[in-house]
Amino acid sequence: MRTLAAELPHEEGADVELAGWIHRVRDLGKICFVVLRDRSGLAQVVADAAPEATLESVIRVRGKSRENPRAPGGWELAATSIELIAPAEPGIPIQVNADPDSLSLESALDQRFLSLRNPKALGAFRVQATILEAFATTLRSQGFTEVKTSKLVATGTEGGSGLFEVDYFGQRAYLAQSPQFYKQAMVASGLERVFEIGQAYRAEKHDTPRHLNEYCSLDLELAFIESELDLIELERRLFSSIFEAVSSRNSRELSAWGARVPTPEEVAKAPVVGHDEAIEIANREAGTKAYEITPEVERAICAWSERERGSDLVFVNEFPRKHRPFYAYPKGRSTMSFDCIFRGLEVTTGGRRINEYTMLKESFERNGMEEGDYAAYASIFKYGCPPHGGFAIGLERLTQKIMGFQNVRQASLFPRDRHRLTP
Amino acid sequence: MRTLAAELPHEEGADVELAGWIHRVRDLGKICFVVLRDRSGLAQVVADAAPEATLESVIRVRGKSRENPRAPGGWELAATSIELIAPAEPGIPIQVNADPDSLSLESALDQRFLSLRNPKALGAFRVQATILEAFATTLRSQGFTEVKTSKLVATGTEGGSGLFEVDYFGQRAYLAQSPQFYKQAMVASGLERVFEIGQAYRAEKHDTPRHLNEYCSLDLELAFIESELDLIELERRLFSSIFEAVSSRNSRELSAWGARVPTPEEVAKAPVVGHDEAIEIANREAGTKAYEITPEVERAICAWSERERGSDLVFVNEFPRKHRPFYAYPKGRSTMSFDCIFRGLEVTTGGRRINEYTMLKESFERNGMEEGDYAAYASIFKYGCPPHGGFAIGLERLTQKIMGFQNVRQASLFPRDRHRLTP
Repeated sequence: MRTLAAELPHEEGADVELAGWIHRVRDLGKICFVVLRDRSGLAQVVADAAPEATLESVIRVRGKSRENPRAPGGWELAATSIELIAPAEPGIPIQVNADPDSLSLESALDQRFLSLRNPKALGAFRVQATILEAFATTLRSQGFTEVKTSKLVATGTEGGSGLFEVDYFGQRAYLAQSPQFYKQAMVASGLERVFEIGQAYRAEKHDTPRHLNEYCSLDLELAFIESELDLIELERRLFSSIFEAVSSRNSRELSAWGARVPTPEEVAKAPVVGHDEAIEIANREAGTKAYEITPEVERAICAWSERERGSDLVFVNEFPRKHRPFYAYPKGRSTMSFDCIFRGLEVTTGGRRINEYTMLKESFERNGMEEGDYAAYASIFKYGCPPHGGFAIGLERLTQKIMGFQNVRQASLFPRDRHRLTP
Repeated sequence: MRTLAAELPHEEGADVELAGWIHRVRDLGKICFVVLRDRSGLAQVVADAAPEATLESVIRVRGKSRENPRAPGGWELAATSIELIAPAEPGIPIQVNADPDSLSLESALDQRFLSLRNPKALGAFRVQATILEAFATTLRSQGFTEVKTSKLVATGTEGGSGLFEVDYFGQRAYLAQSPQFYKQAMVASGLERVFEIGQAYRAEKHDTPRHLNEYCSLDLELAFIESELDLIELERRLFSSIFEAVSSRNSRELSAWGARVPTPEEVAKAPVVGHDEAIEIANREAGTKAYEITPEVERAICAWSERERGSDLVFVNEFPRKHRPFYAYPKGRSTMSFDCIFRGLEVTTGGRRINEYTMLKESFERNGMEEGDYAAYASIFKYGCPPHGGFAIGLERLTQKIMGFQNVRQASLFPRDRHRLTP
């Protein structure tokens, strides 16, 4: 029976077997320290001689567990045998046990299969897994049902630009920009509260630290809301749960990067600021003259909120109609919509949607759309749809901001951008 | 505060408010019975007069909850007011409250946004949500980490055929057939045990009741296994958990379709039969002369297993090399691979993978592949990769077989096939 590195303290004096990768070797001649890496962490192995294997080879070690205050974790394995399971060839292109910051982002991504072996780099994706779990668990506890909808669509939800085209048996199809229409259909199907975790695609030629052309969207939609304020309250609960889960399960991963998550109190204190007011505050704060929510405004409003309200989360609501899609529920000249900005970056967009068929027809007209092109979508509302709304969280952006990464690509296992399609 | 239909019995005599869709109306003149549908189920509302609204309109009803043995669920609401929240236009193209079997599959899929409103039809997707949750929960409890990998790739994992082509900024990309390479990379990254729930694409021109061109793949991969037998044991545990969850949470959805899930005992009794023997048994059983695992063989081997072993699940292992991809771990002329066949349909393919670099190079050569074309993939094994393997469960096929559907399209919210790209 294999023992994990993290379990050594429970095995005092017992004959145990570890298995994993050779992370580091310190050969002192008469004695050799081998640091072994497995899914639980690192373990120090003490052997008479260095193993005849290069770093990154996979070995099985048998021996006795014993306490040693100078060993990492306070325990080590006194080896009686070391067996080579899978050798690593010499000449590995990157040094796995070095700090990931010693690699350029380009090199790290070019060698992604190997650079992810570094425990600090990999840690971001353990955090990401916690986010995925906490998102789903929290929503299920609120009566939400998980759905899986198609990512191959005949038309885009946000209009024709920014779509990747797919050759679908000679027909033209597109990769879905969001599950928006499907989420709404599933609310109206009677599920009322749905969430979907799935890929989303934007064929935009951005080349910035904040954009990916493929990302994982944490989507939800629910019925019987009054306005976007209900959604903001739900997102507060969701973020509190996610941050609490990350804080309690991923303290090692966070501390490796000097990262921290907001407390529930900080989430509760996050202000809700109207679109126009947010721009005013940001202009005052940064001495700029912005007329819409730019990346600079996002950074400035968060700096203001952190200083004045003690929270690095800000909800901006009441976006003007012209900045929102045709399905946004109007409120005078603005809409019942919001963004959530976290540490200077928009991580969520959402809002109440139009659920009244007559209002939808007006919106089609106002936006120069033909109802006939959206007949299936319109049928959702033509035949009885309750007031509803929802939002989507960008998984990679949320991970990026939790970890404190400069670039969203660091928070994607295999990022896709204009220039990168591999590995 | 809104009360759900299912909560009526807890509200005896209280003033409550229900909200939902008008599912059915029985107007007796002096008294009118309205069946209201919400996410929890159906509730009988008793009113003085029929509501001035068509079926499928969304209403809010206030009144008192009272026991009535003749009402569905034994409780009803004596209405004091009915408010119209969202009217449905007359002339809805399908009858939502009729048995879904009264609609052809084509019509049901053409009108998917409306046909899903039928509680029996929608029930399959409540079951699907339970499968998704149980899959993830069971694996997390076994130390698995969830990952999200790209579905836009530069080359296929299973060779060049059957790939959908994407125009990626003028470059040629493909929709991933499976996360196979990424799963293996993540095992070798040190996570050791990973799972992914994501879409998979096959551009095959099948037009059968068992094929979809886009499906949701429940994928997993784990290190330090000996052979496919370890994977089969894991799948037994997984299926037991999934079936148990469905059985306990979805009894209403199952009984609407006359469906049942196998018991843990039946899962335990599922035989493991070698590929050649399985074909022999099936030929004997069905009087056929098959030389490979055809759909007929799958049905016959399950019929045999159900009669002889008391289980409608069969694991078939030891597939010949020629029927498995280049990465299958060889065992003489066969491979350490398996399929799981459930009620006559393959729902899982898996196996141990080649983890030794020299063996992989031989396999490249044997299959006429150039290592240079797979350099990133090969680097996983060149630099130390433990023995490992995994499998993938088709979510829609599993749902189909649990529900007893004739066609896998019934188990996909928005199926994609050669002729269908909408809604």
